[in-house]
Formats: sequence, C-alpha cells, structure tokens
Amino acid sequence: MRYYPKPAENLDLREINRAIEEAFAEHGRDNVQMPPKNYVFFKKGDFRTMPGYIPSLDIAGVKVVNVHPENREKDLPTVMAVIVIINPETGYPEAVLNGTKLTDLRTAAAGAVAAKYLSPSKKVSIGVFGSGRQAQTQVAATALELEVDEIRVWSRNQVHAEALCKQFPDYECHPAAPEEICECELIITATPSRVPIVESEWISKGTHINAIGADAPGKEELDPAILNRATVVVDDPRQAVHSGEINVPIEKGLFSEGAIAGTLGEYVLGRKKRRTPDEITVFDSTGLAIQDLAISKIAMEKGEWIGLEFL
Amino acid sequence: MRYYPKPAENLDLREINRAIEEAFAEHGRDNVQMPPKNYVFFKKGDFRTMPGYIPSLDIAGVKVVNVHPENREKDLPTVMAVIVIINPETGYPEAVLNGTKLTDLRTAAAGAVAAKYLSPSKKVSIGVFGSGRQAQTQVAATALELEVDEIRVWSRNQVHAEALCKQFPDYECHPAAPEEICECELIITATPSRVPIVESEWISKGTHINAIGADAPGKEELDPAILNRATVVVDDPRQAVHSGEINVPIEKGLFSEGAIAGTLGEYVLGRKKRRTPDEITVFDSTGLAIQDLAISKIAMEKGEWIGLEFL
Repeated sequence: MRYYPKPAENLDLREINRAIEEAFAEHGRDNVQMPPKNYVFFKKGDFRTMPGYIPSLDIAGVKVVNVHPENREKDLPTVMAVIVIINPETGYPEAVLNGTKLTDLRTAAAGAVAAKYLSPSKKVSIGVFGSGRQAQTQVAATALELEVDEIRVWSRNQVHAEALCKQFPDYECHPAAPEEICECELIITATPSRVPIVESEWISKGTHINAIGADAPGKEELDPAILNRATVVVDDPRQAVHSGEINVPIEKGLFSEGAIAGTLGEYVLGRKKRRTPDEITVFDSTGLAIQDLAISKIAMEKGEWIGLEFL
Repeated sequence: MRYYPKPAENLDLREINRAIEEAFAEHGRDNVQMPPKNYVFFKKGDFRTMPGYIPSLDIAGVKVVNVHPENREKDLPTVMAVIVIINPETGYPEAVLNGTKLTDLRTAAAGAVAAKYLSPSKKVSIGVFGSGRQAQTQVAATALELEVDEIRVWSRNQVHAEALCKQFPDYECHPAAPEEICECELIITATPSRVPIVESEWISKGTHINAIGADAPGKEELDPAILNRATVVVDDPRQAVHSGEINVPIEKGLFSEGAIAGTLGEYVLGRKKRRTPDEITVFDSTGLAIQDLAISKIAMEKGEWIGLEFL
C-alpha cells in the first residue's frame, strides 16, 4: 500500500481539467458507479464518505472528507480529506492519498469544465463571490479554458478581495460590489453562505454562474428566482437535490427537480448545448467521487509516495 | 496521521467481546450514527464502504472492505480492509488501520455476544458449518462466553475440518455430518454459500444459530423454513434485509421484514429476552461499521503505529 502525503504538488492544472472533463463524460455515458455520498454528523461539523469506480480509467476508491467550520480557530483546515484507492481486479488497497488539496483542485476543474461548455462566450470577465482557497483555485482553473479580460472579486472583507487579486498579477483584477460582480459574463460563487447573496435583479441575460459553495443540506448562495430564469445544469441530480445549490429551493417548493436541464456530463458529450446568447445558465456543483478518482489517477502517476506494510 | 500495519496483534479476545457488546448496546439505545453500507461492484468482486460514529466512545470513521472470491488463486486474501479514523472534534484523519484481521475478530465477537444472550444454556456443544478463518475465530470468541463441552465441524473437505479441530486441542472436537452438526445447542454457519446448506428438519427445538456467512445480496445458508420457526434477531434491520441471511427469503416472499424479532442491541440491553427453552433463535449477522470502530478503538490504544505526514 502506498501513501501519498503531498499528491497535489506539481500537478498540471490543464491536465486536471482534461481528466475531470473525461470523468464527467463517463458520468454522462453512465459508465461509472457512484453510490450516494453519506453524511455522519458531529457537534461541530460532519464527514462525508464518497465511493466510486470509473472502469475506463481502471480506478476505484473512496474519499473521506470532513467539514468543520470552527477549525480555523485551531489552525486546522476546515476541510481535510483522505482518499483510499482500491484495485478493481483484486480489491487490494493500493494507496492512501492526502486528499485535501486534490479536493480543491478537482472542484475548481469542474467549474472550469462547466465554464468551457456553458459560458456565453470564449472571452469573459469573471466575477467572484468569495475570496478563499476555492475562489482562487476556481479562477486559476477557469482561466485555462477561457480568455479572461477582467476579474472582479467581492468579499465581506475587502482586504481579502485585494489579496486574491494579488494572486492574479497578469490580469486586471479588483474588488467590487456585488452588483458590479454580476455584470460579468461568468460569475463564480464560492462562499460558505447559508442565505442567498446573489439577487436575481443583478443578473442579466446571457450570464453563466458556477454555483460552487453549496455542498450540504441548508446551504445556498443564489436567489431562487435566478434558478427559475436559468437553465440549471447539475453535476449529479441525486447529490444536487440533496445538498447542492438547488437543495433549499426544492425543500421550500421554490424549484423542482424536474426543472433540472441536464448534467454537466451531457453537456460535455454534446448531447445538450447552450441554446441562445440570452440564456442564463447555472452550474450547480456538489462534488463527485469520480472527480476525486480521476485526479487521484493523475496524482498517483506523478506523486511521491512511501510504502506501507499491509498484507 | 498514524498508520497501524498490524493492529490485530496482541488483542485480548475477551476485551474485544466486551467492546463489541458495548457497541451493540449503544446501537440498541440508538446512540450511534451508521449510514447504509454502500456497495461498488467489479467483474470479480466488490467493495463496501461503511461509515459510522459512536459518540460515547468518541470514535468515528469508515471501513473500506473488498470481497474478491477468486483472490485465493493469486495468493491474496478474499477480504481486505482499511479503516480510516476521523476525529469527531476536528474531522482530522487520526489514523489508517489495516482492518483485515480486525474484521475477522469483530465479526467473531458479534457471534460470541449473540451466543451469550441467545444460547439456550450456559454449557453448549458447538456445531460449525465451514472451516475457514471465520469459523475458527467464531469458535474461539464464543468459547470465552459459554462453557463448551464439544465442537463438531462440517466442511466440504474433511481435511479442512480436521485442521480446524487441531486448533482447539483443549476441546473434544471432530468432523461431523451436517445432521450431526445440527444436534448441537449452538450452531454457527460460516460459509460463503449461496444456497441453503442447513435443512429445517435437522434443527431441533431449543437451538441457537449464529448465521454469519450471508453478508451480501444473494447469499444464504439456512433453509428459509428455519427462519419461520425461529425468533430471528438481526444486527441491523436495514443491512439484514439488504444483505443478511434473510435477504434471499425476503426477496422470494418466504420471510417478511415484519417478522424480525429484534436487534442484538435490544437483547444486550435486556429489553428483549429468550422466552422458552424450546425457542429456536437465529442471529443474522451482516457486520456493522460500529463493530469496526469499537475494535479500532482498542487496537489504537495497544497497537504499534508509524507517523504519516498529513497536513
């Protein structure tokens, strides 16, 4: 059994985007296994168990990932992940990977792939709600898929917004008010919000929104009225209904599962397409086990590992 | 993060029985979290993901375990397991344990606890169907809970039955025909069978059966007529219906979920009891994540570990 302590180092973001795109294509072809994500709840957080199998990549395994919002006070990451890789032929546990940074990267890659297929144009301005690790990684991954002429960042703390911009010195990047963020062709929401922070009246026709932050029951970032104006694309319907951007609106009867336009996999395969320049599109990202497996495949090819006695 | 390569060494079987008994008591009190076991299927086997949390023991985590019957040809175990332990307070992945032998031990302990509460008498003869690792471990764990005056072993291969007996030199132990096995007060079925191997007419009143082998859809060891004569106790109703001894009879309409008499936890707590000397009782064991966590707790206190860089 191999242990990969830092498998996210030296990975190529373009290669990750392609691997995640292929994972979504296989999902669209219904060529993967992915039992429902399970949740265990603690007083101060939870952990999720995400098993999966991509036969065409010959990779299977499970990610175990926590969310403990109060960890920042303890100098620990809010989210930490371990990935266990199982050999499909024998069931032997081939590897354990530190999955924390891989989780960031594969989530960003899903946003990048969604932007590639759903963006209203190849050249965009990007507006970001949030200034954390995920906001930064989303912009970096998406900038490899589209030509970016401007980046605007909103954060509750302007210093954080400015710090995020400093990480993109090659772009015109500046903090902005929420309404100004929403003038961009591509909007990314990457906050831990539990109440909508994006108003429907701020959103013009022809906008694409990557809704990244909502990944558990009770979380949402968008005014539900936006969903009803938009073509809503999900990573996986079952997960999105349970814990994605649409979970609260569905719970409240403000959106219906039947209104989901399709999965990202269907768009990657070209079975569905953005129809008009005026269309508002939303990608609801919850994070799939197959993304973790696809990025683990790359990470295991390149990463340094130590051998662990197992049998 | 700690890695325990051989956490099953030097464990005390009595202490394991008590830890598993306490886990079932907490299950009976509804003081645990245990999302459904998930299955991922391969051409030659499967793997299962088993998350759980026992707040009173302050232990949480996930077992990942495969079943690949053809592994014997490759000199690999059929079943291999990895357990990831998550700190409830922070979500930090505290440990990864080699869970293969722990799985054997905690399964045997469940049988021992069931025998303690459901056996018709404190002094018993034990009849065993099967001669593998699990058959051996079941007898060893149960012999700590009851006085054993004789052991009878049936195996398709008599040499294997004799080999099992050699592991119990302090007992009168001998190979026997299936009908003779069924004359024992306590019967243990620990085979990989997919068709019933124990006939109803062989089973007399006042017998207890630990049905251990059936742990996946399609597997069964007992003539369903036995279940209809018996008080059927399960480890967990949801898992038993899906993959325990009762799964095939339920699928065929020969047994109903409503006929389950209770859970082992209820018997451990004394909320339910064996009622008459004539009662036939069956314990349907599927294996619970909380058993893995309870034994991991002990193993982590005593086992040798190596430190793995994680953050």
